[in-house]
Amino acid sequence: MSAPTPAEAVILVSCPDQSGIVARVANCLHETGGNILDAAQHTDFQSDTFLQRLHVSWPASEPDANDIDSALSVLGEQLHLDWRTRWVSQPKRVAIFVSREDHCLHDLLLLRRDGQLHCELALIVSNHPDLGEIANRFGIPFHHVPVPCSGDVDAEATQLALLQSNDIDLVVLARYMRVLSLDFINAYASRIINIHHSFLPAFAGAAPYRQAHEKGVKLIGATAHFATATLDDGPIIEQGVTRVSHRDSVQDMVRKGRDIERTVLARAVRWYLEDRIIEHNGRAIVFE
Amino acid sequence: MSAPTPAEAVILVSCPDQSGIVARVANCLHETGGNILDAAQHTDFQSDTFLQRLHVSWPASEPDANDIDSALSVLGEQLHLDWRTRWVSQPKRVAIFVSREDHCLHDLLLLRRDGQLHCELALIVSNHPDLGEIANRFGIPFHHVPVPCSGDVDAEATQLALLQSNDIDLVVLARYMRVLSLDFINAYASRIINIHHSFLPAFAGAAPYRQAHEKGVKLIGATAHFATATLDDGPIIEQGVTRVSHRDSVQDMVRKGRDIERTVLARAVRWYLEDRIIEHNGRAIVFE
Amino acid sequence: MSAPTPAEAVILVSCPDQSGIVARVANCLHETGGNILDAAQHTDFQSDTFLQRLHVSWPASEPDANDIDSALSVLGEQLHLDWRTRWVSQPKRVAIFVSREDHCLHDLLLLRRDGQLHCELALIVSNHPDLGEIANRFGIPFHHVPVPCSGDVDAEATQLALLQSNDIDLVVLARYMRVLSLDFINAYASRIINIHHSFLPAFAGAAPYRQAHEKGVKLIGATAHFATATLDDGPIIEQGVTRVSHRDSVQDMVRKGRDIERTVLARAVRWYLEDRIIEHNGRAIVFE
Amino acid sequence: MSAPTPAEAVILVSCPDQSGIVARVANCLHETGGNILDAAQHTDFQSDTFLQRLHVSWPASEPDANDIDSALSVLGEQLHLDWRTRWVSQPKRVAIFVSREDHCLHDLLLLRRDGQLHCELALIVSNHPDLGEIANRFGIPFHHVPVPCSGDVDAEATQLALLQSNDIDLVVLARYMRVLSLDFINAYASRIINIHHSFLPAFAGAAPYRQAHEKGVKLIGATAHFATATLDDGPIIEQGVTRVSHRDSVQDMVRKGRDIERTVLARAVRWYLEDRIIEHNGRAIVFE
Repeated sequence: MSAPTPAEAVILVSCPDQSGIVARVANCLHETGGNILDAAQHTDFQSDTFLQRLHVSWPASEPDANDIDSALSVLGEQLHLDWRTRWVSQPKRVAIFVSREDHCLHDLLLLRRDGQLHCELALIVSNHPDLGEIANRFGIPFHHVPVPCSGDVDAEATQLALLQSNDIDLVVLARYMRVLSLDFINAYASRIINIHHSFLPAFAGAAPYRQAHEKGVKLIGATAHFATATLDDGPIIEQGVTRVSHRDSVQDMVRKGRDIERTVLARAVRWYLEDRIIEHNGRAIVFE
Repeated sequence: MSAPTPAEAVILVSCPDQSGIVARVANCLHETGGNILDAAQHTDFQSDTFLQRLHVSWPASEPDANDIDSALSVLGEQLHLDWRTRWVSQPKRVAIFVSREDHCLHDLLLLRRDGQLHCELALIVSNHPDLGEIANRFGIPFHHVPVPCSGDVDAEATQLALLQSNDIDLVVLARYMRVLSLDFINAYASRIINIHHSFLPAFAGAAPYRQAHEKGVKLIGATAHFATATLDDGPIIEQGVTRVSHRDSVQDMVRKGRDIERTVLARAVRWYLEDRIIEHNGRAIVFE
Repeated sequence: MSAPTPAEAVILVSCPDQSGIVARVANCLHETGGNILDAAQHTDFQSDTFLQRLHVSWPASEPDANDIDSALSVLGEQLHLDWRTRWVSQPKRVAIFVSREDHCLHDLLLLRRDGQLHCELALIVSNHPDLGEIANRFGIPFHHVPVPCSGDVDAEATQLALLQSNDIDLVVLARYMRVLSLDFINAYASRIINIHHSFLPAFAGAAPYRQAHEKGVKLIGATAHFATATLDDGPIIEQGVTRVSHRDSVQDMVRKGRDIERTVLARAVRWYLEDRIIEHNGRAIVFE
Repeated sequence: MSAPTPAEAVILVSCPDQSGIVARVANCLHETGGNILDAAQHTDFQSDTFLQRLHVSWPASEPDANDIDSALSVLGEQLHLDWRTRWVSQPKRVAIFVSREDHCLHDLLLLRRDGQLHCELALIVSNHPDLGEIANRFGIPFHHVPVPCSGDVDAEATQLALLQSNDIDLVVLARYMRVLSLDFINAYASRIINIHHSFLPAFAGAAPYRQAHEKGVKLIGATAHFATATLDDGPIIEQGVTRVSHRDSVQDMVRKGRDIERTVLARAVRWYLEDRIIEHNGRAIVFE
């Protein structure tokens, strides 16, 4: 009989900056039997806020989640601490939204199959039926929800119902070509990751590669960000670029951009699934 | 007695696109005794324009520049060809404008000393006296021209007189912290290269690193471009980026950005000096 | 009735360096009615060899391939010119060899489906049956040829028969985990592209990521090269790198490396298909 | 009257891995009045070793260094902990060794002048007199110590005497073209940083750019590493690469490589000065 894997959790912490936090949090977890496998911290001096990510294991015996919660609660009151705990044994549940382009979807599916994305891939939602076959191949439920135009109320109601009934933690917009309504975004604030095919804040909005071509830039990029009320303006999670020249047509840029888009999106999604991202004051702090 | 170096020239050509140009230009030069050491071409399909850079030597005997001019003139009439010839033996004359920051200036001085920038460095102009000592060290005439505010008429008149009396072909704005007037820019259209410390078109204008920090971007950059009437909006010659994270303060970004600025500017200047850049329809075609 | 697409060809040329080649080749093609769409040249001074890639169209009328061949033959005798012509209407025929890992295969299949790789994908050969299903999905014939050990004579005979009966121009080793015999390599000299998962010449041979991990390198890479008699030592076509740190386990490096491997291999294959590569004196000249 | 800057120290810790270390170290420092400004940790599973870098301030009152030492000693005995403390108010003392090339030296001098390298630059030692003038300009003592051949006993004795009398903490080999003897290296083990102009472990030894050119690589690089008994084989601290092609001569590679060399070396030196590097089992762990 093999020994059970020790319980592990990732804990994200934020509180007003003050002396001694690191020691007190470490102590609190130590007293529950926890061992800190990894820790990263950041102090935002503009808001005087302390932020920390802790990866903790309980090697000796299976901890009672309530006990740990209680211990952190006590500390939380003393330090005005916000925290959230995710047990590694409970992977997040993900929905992917797509339209017709499949390069980002393919990458996410392959990475998850290879054990690189620790999540439950609960469903794929699309405003076109085209990618249903790929979803089937990988055994992921596929829902074709036509969306006559961006923000269509009925379509979004259907989509939201799907997310709720599937208990979704993260929505990934993998080249989904509709703009979500403000209501939708608010319902999943900080839980929607979009990939935009430009090096934001340059070339927000439609046809960024065409804009980039006209401008004659020498590098094109892609940006993964949280979706917010303002189009293509949410907290930036990850960015990448690749070199172009006058020889590259708009079509060439689209092709070269695909490699960047899928790579950048995959990294952002992985970091979210591993609780490496803290959104703070409109910026995404990433503990890589 | 060593043999004289054969004459060499770089010829930049543009004309309406049509069949047979490459052969006819090659032939024309061949008939003057020229040998094409390198050739690069580009067809801009939006404007149906053919552009070419030719590096030619006359190995057998010193050519008469007038003969070559005449030969190209005949072809020019037939093909509606614009061209310009620069003899490698006649390097361009360069003026560098600076303020107080010296990282870009230092790089240009060192590169030229090491034979990497083929030019006559005729003078350095600054609105502050600080960098005069560096200029002296490298034996370059230094002119301190105070500029009370951007576009000051008297100061610019002094600067323009310096450029004209020194027969300047290229003005390099190496972190020069004044905006030039439209008149100045028009007087040296397509002959002023500026380095902007952001990945344009993002963060044009003042304090780009501060803007980048607020935005939480994950890559910062620098852009070398021709100066035009619109601030930070001229044809882009070269760009580079480097990675940043939430750990980087604005000051850290300034530091990391310096490496990119100087490298990007030096590349752009080198390409200009080697006649590798053709400005066409608001874009810089670079035959690297 | 739409006009037929004009005939296009890519012509690769090499000959002893001498004055006037560019003009004479251009002229020769011009006289056949050819228009040079793009040209790139390189002179290797160690061997005094001139190399050129020409992309030519015949806009006026469909050329007779024999006429063009004759014209080039005459020039060829005069200049001791080697050349090969590929008509764009006749894409190369490709075989992909794989084992169990599918990330490179997937990318090649998707790129070709999206029109990014101009070729006939004639067959996929594997020493394992696992990837047959993917091949089927994309409608590519799949051949499972067990290879008990590297260089197995019977297995290679079967593979070679498949290549010959399918008239294969290029063999792509897309993470194929067997070493080919010298006889096999000689039969397809300069027509086998391999992807090695290291930044060659560092870490040739087995388990390069393990070697890289032990060495503590800060960048890992991948190299696409022509297969030659010496393992992992053929002319390098393309390379790429990505950053790693002490936090990355060997397994993390394997994951990060996959992105580089597939990207680098895809670029090398595309360049080959577009006749952008000339092998010369043990090096791959790539006219990107 | 402005308040005095609070005392700050960087503490590097290593010990056999065991549960509870993070909490106990944090607690120990907390009890001395210390506040952990930043902490980074790594567990090397091959040797079961825990490594940590702590940046600590004592905001309330100036600590007694002996008290902190005593506190860590007690913990050290309990946990078999090795540690070293460096007070930020006591910057390291650096010697730079050069020969004739000045691009790396220039960068280090400029960075230090701009406050980017927190150190005392005590002296520059060279086997050639050429760079004395630069040293003078920046006000750094310059010692010309001729070294007839690598490992010359008398020359090294002179150099070592200079290092000892100047109380040197770090020796930077900034393109110093002599190989140090084993005795020299042992005397400053883990305190000599060299920049090698290749992407190690490829192209160790002499003329790496010539080797790279012959090999036809598509990327060239530079490697900063600790000097050890085996030439160009010490723990790698930092690496960088840049793209090259068949167009680049060896001389072009030398030029392109310079930018990488100086950037990579400057990063490695900065990390050392900020105590971000722990050497462990032949690898350099860098807490960037």
